[in-house]
Amino acid sequence: MANLNPNASYSLALTIELPNIAGTLSYVTQAIAAAGGSLGQISLIEHTLKITRREITIDASSEEQAEKIVSAVREIPNVKVIKVSDRTFELHRKGKITVNSRLPLTSQSDLAMAYTPGVGRICQAIAREPSKVYELTIKNNTVAVVTDGSAVLGLGNLGPEAALPVMEGKAMLFKEFGGIDAFPICLATQDTEEIIETVKRIAPVFGGVNLEDISAPRCFEIEERLRKELDIPVFHDDQHGTAIVTLAALFNALKLVQKTIEEVRIVINGAGAAGVAIASLLQAAGATTIWLCDTKGILSTSRTDLNPQKQAYAVNASGSLADAMQGADIFLGVSAPGVVTPEMVRSMAKDPIVFAMANPIPEIQPELITDDVAVMATGRSDYPNQINNVLAFPGVFRGALDCRAKTITEHMCLEAAKAIASLVTSNNLDREHIVPSVFDQRVAPAVASAVQLAARQDGVATQ
Amino acid sequence: MANLNPNASYSLALTIELPNIAGTLSYVTQAIAAAGGSLGQISLIEHTLKITRREITIDASSEEQAEKIVSAVREIPNVKVIKVSDRTFELHRKGKITVNSRLPLTSQSDLAMAYTPGVGRICQAIAREPSKVYELTIKNNTVAVVTDGSAVLGLGNLGPEAALPVMEGKAMLFKEFGGIDAFPICLATQDTEEIIETVKRIAPVFGGVNLEDISAPRCFEIEERLRKELDIPVFHDDQHGTAIVTLAALFNALKLVQKTIEEVRIVINGAGAAGVAIASLLQAAGATTIWLCDTKGILSTSRTDLNPQKQAYAVNASGSLADAMQGADIFLGVSAPGVVTPEMVRSMAKDPIVFAMANPIPEIQPELITDDVAVMATGRSDYPNQINNVLAFPGVFRGALDCRAKTITEHMCLEAAKAIASLVTSNNLDREHIVPSVFDQRVAPAVASAVQLAARQDGVATQ
Repeated sequence: MANLNPNASYSLALTIELPNIAGTLSYVTQAIAAAGGSLGQISLIEHTLKITRREITIDASSEEQAEKIVSAVREIPNVKVIKVSDRTFELHRKGKITVNSRLPLTSQSDLAMAYTPGVGRICQAIAREPSKVYELTIKNNTVAVVTDGSAVLGLGNLGPEAALPVMEGKAMLFKEFGGIDAFPICLATQDTEEIIETVKRIAPVFGGVNLEDISAPRCFEIEERLRKELDIPVFHDDQHGTAIVTLAALFNALKLVQKTIEEVRIVINGAGAAGVAIASLLQAAGATTIWLCDTKGILSTSRTDLNPQKQAYAVNASGSLADAMQGADIFLGVSAPGVVTPEMVRSMAKDPIVFAMANPIPEIQPELITDDVAVMATGRSDYPNQINNVLAFPGVFRGALDCRAKTITEHMCLEAAKAIASLVTSNNLDREHIVPSVFDQRVAPAVASAVQLAARQDGVATQ
Repeated sequence: MANLNPNASYSLALTIELPNIAGTLSYVTQAIAAAGGSLGQISLIEHTLKITRREITIDASSEEQAEKIVSAVREIPNVKVIKVSDRTFELHRKGKITVNSRLPLTSQSDLAMAYTPGVGRICQAIAREPSKVYELTIKNNTVAVVTDGSAVLGLGNLGPEAALPVMEGKAMLFKEFGGIDAFPICLATQDTEEIIETVKRIAPVFGGVNLEDISAPRCFEIEERLRKELDIPVFHDDQHGTAIVTLAALFNALKLVQKTIEEVRIVINGAGAAGVAIASLLQAAGATTIWLCDTKGILSTSRTDLNPQKQAYAVNASGSLADAMQGADIFLGVSAPGVVTPEMVRSMAKDPIVFAMANPIPEIQPELITDDVAVMATGRSDYPNQINNVLAFPGVFRGALDCRAKTITEHMCLEAAKAIASLVTSNNLDREHIVPSVFDQRVAPAVASAVQLAARQDGVATQ
């Protein structure tokens, strides 16, 4: 498996004390570089006649390497390491979100309006006319980020407490990119029925539900049932968010190779939540030939071990992933690190498109096949063409909340993908730029408008 | 039933246009005063040669009176009413709380640390060592404000949506007075078992649970079971918050009349959540003679209609509330508007203490018995001695969270009451000042310290 590049997820802040002798700092920076660290900010903290104190930010590629870097600095004569802190852990300390009041509460009349007795008038108004809850409370702009901790990132079943840092992060992204108030709900149950009933019971406060990191196949039933049984939009981001952004990138990649979605043969590796949702949305977009693979190879009509979701995609072909990839136009990986070899890519049709989206380590490292592919994308921010859900979910919910959509239809997802793709114009489109940046501020509003329009066309908008 | 005074809960903002003729504004202010409105701010919005536009803030005592005031202004010749807005409704529009990020999210490295891939390291750290959830997530400072909407303020069973404005208000108070992040959970069930299991399932995110506006007697079992089955503090504010502040006020009132809690006979009217909790805490504080009354009179050992909570307080006496009050030293009302007459108060022992805490309209209007009582308190902010739970719950939870208390003991509540009472020193203590102001910034820290110390003494603090 290829090594990761140094990145901010293993970021250190090193406070060191150096004697005031010319050139000492360069020994430090050399030692860090030699140990493989990537230097960030170097701040001067204190400067006296004899010594200098500095704080140095260093990205590493693993915890082991971070330790090596610190040891290397410690070994430099006359340099004292005063403090080592792990910036990622520091950043998460005490959590990443906060609940604030939107109004001041500093006088008796503030209290009398916001709380008793004034609030009683608002309660009675909602009791008389229930739809007023959207006008007079937070419901209108509030989304529950719900998990059971059964499939946390690519790390597996870590449970609800260990999933909370991800859900808080998601809430941050909802606010930053969609202006939405999101709150984490981490459930101490992994039972399908219990999850469904719990979400239904807490639904009154929320205008939407974003399911997150719930393992397949339970996630399919949970989402389907909640969609039926609740009158607010329910969206499993690992499925539909991934599918939307993948499709957006694919639209643009196909333009580059001048193929149509109808004519290409698409291999999807990974038949969990994301793989199945991608296949479904691609079909809605016109794809005709999709071969879905799991760890046992192609989902073949001859296999007897398939769950209902997988069965729906079974094809009249069989074999391994390598067999599937022979002659295929497109490879979409939502599976595991390093499962694709350069040979497998070279066996694909002319101008192959490869999206290796396993996180954080892709199915194949891009540098191994630079000259063999027409277009390459990953889930990572340190390579071009990052397929990142944050391009989709903030705008999808923004659009759904703004028109008070009862649900999120496949058509809304399709239009979201088109909106994302459209932001890369033909002038800018090239093999290293098939999706907009996650920091492109046009994305969420464009997605929201497209989603809202589709909701109205589908008759699911209620205002 | 006595009328309410004008107050901010019925507050109007009136935009009017007046001709520039000297004295016109005084017609307006006279008309408002004559209609019973209380004038607040008068702002100048626009001033031309011919006209002046002003916005006038007016407190009324009811919606009907507010309408009368507007009609009266409309009738003044040459005065145009441009806009009438209900300030309380305006204030609640779109809700009163918001979820914010504590950190910037503006670069790839911010994303890589706060979200994937960096967040994965935090998840794994918590999975390895579960108690780290307190250090590395919001749990440490986050409280669920849980209701089923069955007893919203004094308004009855309005359901979960109509209860949300109160829960948002509570979350504001938690932040403003305790620095605590609180989030409303309004449950779409009123079944005791379902409420208990739902709260248990969502507990991983929260460091504490504040139960709110859940009707008796279900609230007793819900709280008791959750206390047993969860390892975080659970507190039904309508019970214990009310009891703490009532006891604090009573401590100081007793000083004024030079009686001891052991020797007085106390009548509590209202045997719901608050009444039973007050009786329990008063006993813990040394009270020996408490007669609890419900709508049928004294909870007597001869009655056969009492639930277990009421039975626990049954006494060897019987009769109506009026009978109970004859010769009593103290009346504590947590019941209904106007149920006490001046005659009943005059039948009490020498130097009677009357806390008429029904909200927003007390058991008896203070002005009717000014000369008959030694000390009078209500739940209202427009009379002296407001018994307001906000004096207790922010500090109680602050103290409990800071020492990571597993539960909230009766001893912690007792110490909270003493801490509140202690802030009114003998210099300041008089019949119109037996509790500190809700805006006294010493209150929450004093309560928090007392609660934390008691938690350590009781062995329920875990850090």
